[in-house]
Amino acid sequence: MSDDTVRLARAYLLRVAEPPAPALWGFVAEHGPVEAARRVRAGEVPDRVATETSARRHVDVAERDLEEGGAQGARLVIPEDDEWPAWPLLSLEVAMGRGVDGVAPPLALWMRGEVPLDDVLAFAVAVVGARAATDYGETTAAEFAYELSQADTTVVSGAAYGIDGAAHRGVLAAGGVTVAVLGCGLDVGYPAGHVGLLNRVTQRRGAVVSEYPPGTQPARHRFLVRNRLIAALTAGTVVVEAGRRSGARNTATTAGVLGKVVMAVPGPITSAMSVGCHHLLREGQATLVSSASDVLETVGRFGTGVAPPSTAPRRRTDGLDADALRVFETLPSRGGRSPESIATEAGVDLSRVRAILPVLELEGLAEQCDAGWRERRRQARGG
Amino acid sequence: MSDDTVRLARAYLLRVAEPPAPALWGFVAEHGPVEAARRVRAGEVPDRVATETSARRHVDVAERDLEEGGAQGARLVIPEDDEWPAWPLLSLEVAMGRGVDGVAPPLALWMRGEVPLDDVLAFAVAVVGARAATDYGETTAAEFAYELSQADTTVVSGAAYGIDGAAHRGVLAAGGVTVAVLGCGLDVGYPAGHVGLLNRVTQRRGAVVSEYPPGTQPARHRFLVRNRLIAALTAGTVVVEAGRRSGARNTATTAGVLGKVVMAVPGPITSAMSVGCHHLLREGQATLVSSASDVLETVGRFGTGVAPPSTAPRRRTDGLDADALRVFETLPSRGGRSPESIATEAGVDLSRVRAILPVLELEGLAEQCDAGWRERRRQARGG
Repeated sequence: MSDDTVRLARAYLLRVAEPPAPALWGFVAEHGPVEAARRVRAGEVPDRVATETSARRHVDVAERDLEEGGAQGARLVIPEDDEWPAWPLLSLEVAMGRGVDGVAPPLALWMRGEVPLDDVLAFAVAVVGARAATDYGETTAAEFAYELSQADTTVVSGAAYGIDGAAHRGVLAAGGVTVAVLGCGLDVGYPAGHVGLLNRVTQRRGAVVSEYPPGTQPARHRFLVRNRLIAALTAGTVVVEAGRRSGARNTATTAGVLGKVVMAVPGPITSAMSVGCHHLLREGQATLVSSASDVLETVGRFGTGVAPPSTAPRRRTDGLDADALRVFETLPSRGGRSPESIATEAGVDLSRVRAILPVLELEGLAEQCDAGWRERRRQARGG
Repeated sequence: MSDDTVRLARAYLLRVAEPPAPALWGFVAEHGPVEAARRVRAGEVPDRVATETSARRHVDVAERDLEEGGAQGARLVIPEDDEWPAWPLLSLEVAMGRGVDGVAPPLALWMRGEVPLDDVLAFAVAVVGARAATDYGETTAAEFAYELSQADTTVVSGAAYGIDGAAHRGVLAAGGVTVAVLGCGLDVGYPAGHVGLLNRVTQRRGAVVSEYPPGTQPARHRFLVRNRLIAALTAGTVVVEAGRRSGARNTATTAGVLGKVVMAVPGPITSAMSVGCHHLLREGQATLVSSASDVLETVGRFGTGVAPPSTAPRRRTDGLDADALRVFETLPSRGGRSPESIATEAGVDLSRVRAILPVLELEGLAEQCDAGWRERRRQARGG
């Protein structure tokens, strides 16, 4: 089966269902993209898949999409490619497996940029926030982004006005690498005032990414769906400013669900644009960060970083930091153990133990039982 | 034994040892104040008590202290008085019993004010912070204090310049009740610029309180020792602004040790006066509050409020809020249970369960074992 055939099938599938499409994703995992595409075209699919695909299954413009995309400097990155960011996106698969709604992995990703996507995302942090940002927020976003990129961290954001744009610009000012994840087609030129910014992002070893086929118009629901990719592709998300009902809070919530580190920047209690951040902090859903070094410490501390790609055989515990490894090694294989007891045995601070255990659970290394926590036995990984 | 004899003995003891004096406190609990005073005067005390008392045991000016204090409108409130705030101060006794240093209860309290001290402190919150406060901090302190006092909450602070003064003034502007706890004698007139303010506090049904005898000069170590009283006498402490090494952070830490609610107000990350607050929040040592209603919700939520005095028989679980009661009722009497399991059974959010369990432990209602948490059996309370 040629590479082109698979890519054409994925391009078709990406257009046939509005993301996230969990039933279609499972169907593709079961039958492979080429056979899945054939069955979708023919309408030979289970009801759940039909619900996701019946409205658009006759729209077969995959060849044109690939041609036009190529002409516009875009390429379709598919899971079969070496550059597919499989490791960070695994968090979506794990969360979907746990029954979380709305977190199906993408079937493929449109991308502009020269560097392989997995390299660009080797270690990434999201910096997001409100469009109607204050000067304080934009300055903070730009400074955090500048310093993070100087620490060899890719900064991921959503290319919106306000905080997102300030974050991308901060990276470019530092000569660093940034990734913009869009909620529309790469060719749509949205937001209009950021077309030049996005061009500079791709010229500076960064990337502009979207799971939406060419021509897909921006829409509020697509920004929310896009937010799961921002959360998944990064080790942690920093919310710089957010109103009470901000999309940035949605990204933060998703990041939390995916087991990623959620961080928020405080501000004056008199600022409406800090209300969302203060809410996340007050409810214990985010860790306070007041500098880029706080961000790096927090992301490193919890050890959920996106591990750099490696050709060496992967041990289960690769990617765990020292504390996480000590916590893991303290887990009993039978019965259960309380976080307090684990903290004592591992010599790791209790609050840290409590942060690490859910991460180990998400990584499939630990599980809870009535008596506490224990090691989860190694299992063959399902498709 | 006459009331005067006991009061004279306590006045003597208060002057004879620099607070906190845990050995002397225990000695008084064992022998009663009159006999303890006699033995201290005679030097017939164990070594630990001698260490605390030998330097001043010949200073016997109790009669003069009581006379002069009375002439200046002050009175000595002693544990034998009905108005002694026994319930809030119990937190110091409990913490001392757990081996915490520096938290011995006061042997008596000097006070200015018309209303019985326990009434003034029936429900109180501390609002504290840096002397070198910003306009933002002073405005916030005054507004929080104003609104708290409108919600029938006594605001306790330390009468210092900056945040403390703003808190006291905010209460007075609302016609509310405020308590100033000093780190020097009531007659010393410190800080000089707040003498008028402290007079207004006592004229408005509030109180000025100190465990230091008349004439005791202010000193840095006395402010730190005083901070434990601010923490103990209140249901929770709000840090409005604090530099990296602020005394307000010391009060917050002490409040945490005493099982009280610790709260911090965020501010701009560019403000040196918010660094201490942000540190408390980042380390999970404080809950973020951005309004007086946040404060009331937080203090009520964790159920550690200073219960109003009551003549009815006290059940062990009196003073617990609904969530704390549900957590308590989920505790097994044997074995142990993980916080996760408790959260599931009680239907209370896990983060709340984790906040409540240490409070129940402090109240003598719960204890930890290797398998998790269980109910602590009722015990006769030691003296």
